[in-house]
Amino acid sequence: MSAIYHNTKLVHNFNSGPSVLPREVFEEASRAIMDFNNTGLSILEIGHRSSLFQEVMDEAIATLKELMVLDSEHEVLFLHGGASTQFFQVPMNLLDDKETAAYLDCGTWGTKAIKEAKIFGQVEVVASSKDKDYTYIPKGFIIPETVKYFHYTTNNTIEGTQMRDIPDSGVPLVADMSSDILSHTMDFNRFSLIYAGAQKNIGAAGVNVVVVKKDILGKVSRRLPSMMDYRNHIENGSMLNTPPVFAVYVCMLTLRWLKKLGGIPEIEEKNNVKAKLLYDTLDSLPIFRPKVSGNDRSRMNVVFVIDEPELEKEFLSLCKENGMVGIKGHRSTGGFRASLYNALPQESVTALTELMKDFAQKHG
Amino acid sequence: MSAIYHNTKLVHNFNSGPSVLPREVFEEASRAIMDFNNTGLSILEIGHRSSLFQEVMDEAIATLKELMVLDSEHEVLFLHGGASTQFFQVPMNLLDDKETAAYLDCGTWGTKAIKEAKIFGQVEVVASSKDKDYTYIPKGFIIPETVKYFHYTTNNTIEGTQMRDIPDSGVPLVADMSSDILSHTMDFNRFSLIYAGAQKNIGAAGVNVVVVKKDILGKVSRRLPSMMDYRNHIENGSMLNTPPVFAVYVCMLTLRWLKKLGGIPEIEEKNNVKAKLLYDTLDSLPIFRPKVSGNDRSRMNVVFVIDEPELEKEFLSLCKENGMVGIKGHRSTGGFRASLYNALPQESVTALTELMKDFAQKHG
Repeated sequence: MSAIYHNTKLVHNFNSGPSVLPREVFEEASRAIMDFNNTGLSILEIGHRSSLFQEVMDEAIATLKELMVLDSEHEVLFLHGGASTQFFQVPMNLLDDKETAAYLDCGTWGTKAIKEAKIFGQVEVVASSKDKDYTYIPKGFIIPETVKYFHYTTNNTIEGTQMRDIPDSGVPLVADMSSDILSHTMDFNRFSLIYAGAQKNIGAAGVNVVVVKKDILGKVSRRLPSMMDYRNHIENGSMLNTPPVFAVYVCMLTLRWLKKLGGIPEIEEKNNVKAKLLYDTLDSLPIFRPKVSGNDRSRMNVVFVIDEPELEKEFLSLCKENGMVGIKGHRSTGGFRASLYNALPQESVTALTELMKDFAQKHG
Repeated sequence: MSAIYHNTKLVHNFNSGPSVLPREVFEEASRAIMDFNNTGLSILEIGHRSSLFQEVMDEAIATLKELMVLDSEHEVLFLHGGASTQFFQVPMNLLDDKETAAYLDCGTWGTKAIKEAKIFGQVEVVASSKDKDYTYIPKGFIIPETVKYFHYTTNNTIEGTQMRDIPDSGVPLVADMSSDILSHTMDFNRFSLIYAGAQKNIGAAGVNVVVVKKDILGKVSRRLPSMMDYRNHIENGSMLNTPPVFAVYVCMLTLRWLKKLGGIPEIEEKNNVKAKLLYDTLDSLPIFRPKVSGNDRSRMNVVFVIDEPELEKEFLSLCKENGMVGIKGHRSTGGFRASLYNALPQESVTALTELMKDFAQKHG
């Protein structure tokens, strides 16, 4: 992989999402806006019911199924509304007023999901890491076998924690995988519902992936708006209404890129190398303090601070001067965050760690 | 305006949506995917909380307000989910279980809106044109002053009818303007809520415009999911969650183009010329039969048939040979439909009418 050159500038993009995508995706998308597949038409002006777009949707769905090694019970949907819509669409479809769902409270996004679920039914929070600002993943919690489903966030974009092991439970598992889907191998078939905003590892902002096992649907008593009922989207192949055509197209290109690269096992190795280099560097330089330790560390979002505010500012400026964008921490937490999504080249992490070493030496 | 040349092909795009956009929008969007505003970053990888994107969102909102001459009581939102989401989001926000809303049943989309509204409250259908397959706009209906709001579709994309006059009523007016917004001048301030999928006159598929008067919000007793409450989107400037960045950007470019052109009054003149030419041609050639007559005719979607199936096939082939796409009628109605949205050049309509005349002469 080469670093991302656009025109004359070299940019290292550590954005947390929307975030870096493969250069060949940008190139092909740019071309398709002027002329899609030699049709003389822009991808922005083709009809979504045309065979031109049907092929795009079909390839996006088939490639995602293949990459995730999904069985035939699992359907792949490309929906509107982002993961934030799933926070309420999930309980709206799965949880009746008097039923209970179990939720893990391990970060900003999980907290929001819990709030929305309470509108539709009962929520039992099985564990929380709020006591330490969500800087760890709760362990040893018990998921009651009587709940309708168990919901958790696999990777906490803001707090920089990640839960790679799938909980051992007999209840349907539901996961928000927005920020680490497709980054490491796992048995996706163990989940009854997975959702993820596309704008990290799947494509650009403006579309949402939902993987759903059909047997959990159609069991609530409330009347669902047509657009909120997953069954309608399954039946209509993600084209119940006009889909976000271009956003689905960018997903298709990005999934095609990942498949060509060797799929999830291959990208996982690359991701491990990137994350190890950055965490090892942070651990070796006392001026930097990673906020998460051990196995709970996210390999996608590396969160760290410099305890002296003046030095924090200086390092941020230094990053900017060196073409590094998106390194500033989330507005709610401060500090720094380097997001190492699938499309971020190794060179960008090397450049960042070199800068860290120089900075530490200067202030050592 | 020049016809749309992409590479070497000349294409006349009569798609009903997603549909033709101005060539300069394609060019600028294509460039921005490789390098947005000389940042070295793709528009697809910039953060939505960055000033880079904030400027895009601000310009999109400001330009739409200016073009529609909206007063300060009206807020402009760019939302996920398409107009089909508005079918239920409107009653969810405005109509309590036991309250009644009045709806006009004048086409496929209005019928769908009615179905969704019934999930949330009572619906009184004040008039319907179902008796004649929605080929006309009902007249002389009465909107009870006691209803919570009156909902109608200003332009019926599928059936080719349009209602340009605003109903005279004291109740809050709600309109689905998906397929004719920005195509002709009207007093948009008379509406309490306007919604429109972007993929016809505003931009590309993947985002939805909602114009809402604040005084109608916050009056229902049900608990609203955060993403469904318009007030949250107003408060967060359409960035409650990650917006569809690229789709908003394409809207901004298209709105900028329309403003530069002279705004709605200027495009209305052009649209009138295009529609008049096509309807006059249809009326003068007995082989073609327009499905709508008089003032109810849509200036955006011109629907017509050829009564002989063999000739219908032949004309469709002829259109294809001459680079005309999207001329086939909706799968539910058959026949033909030529959509004449803002960005469709006059040349495309001229080319179509010339072809019609040749065809009529051959079979006359």
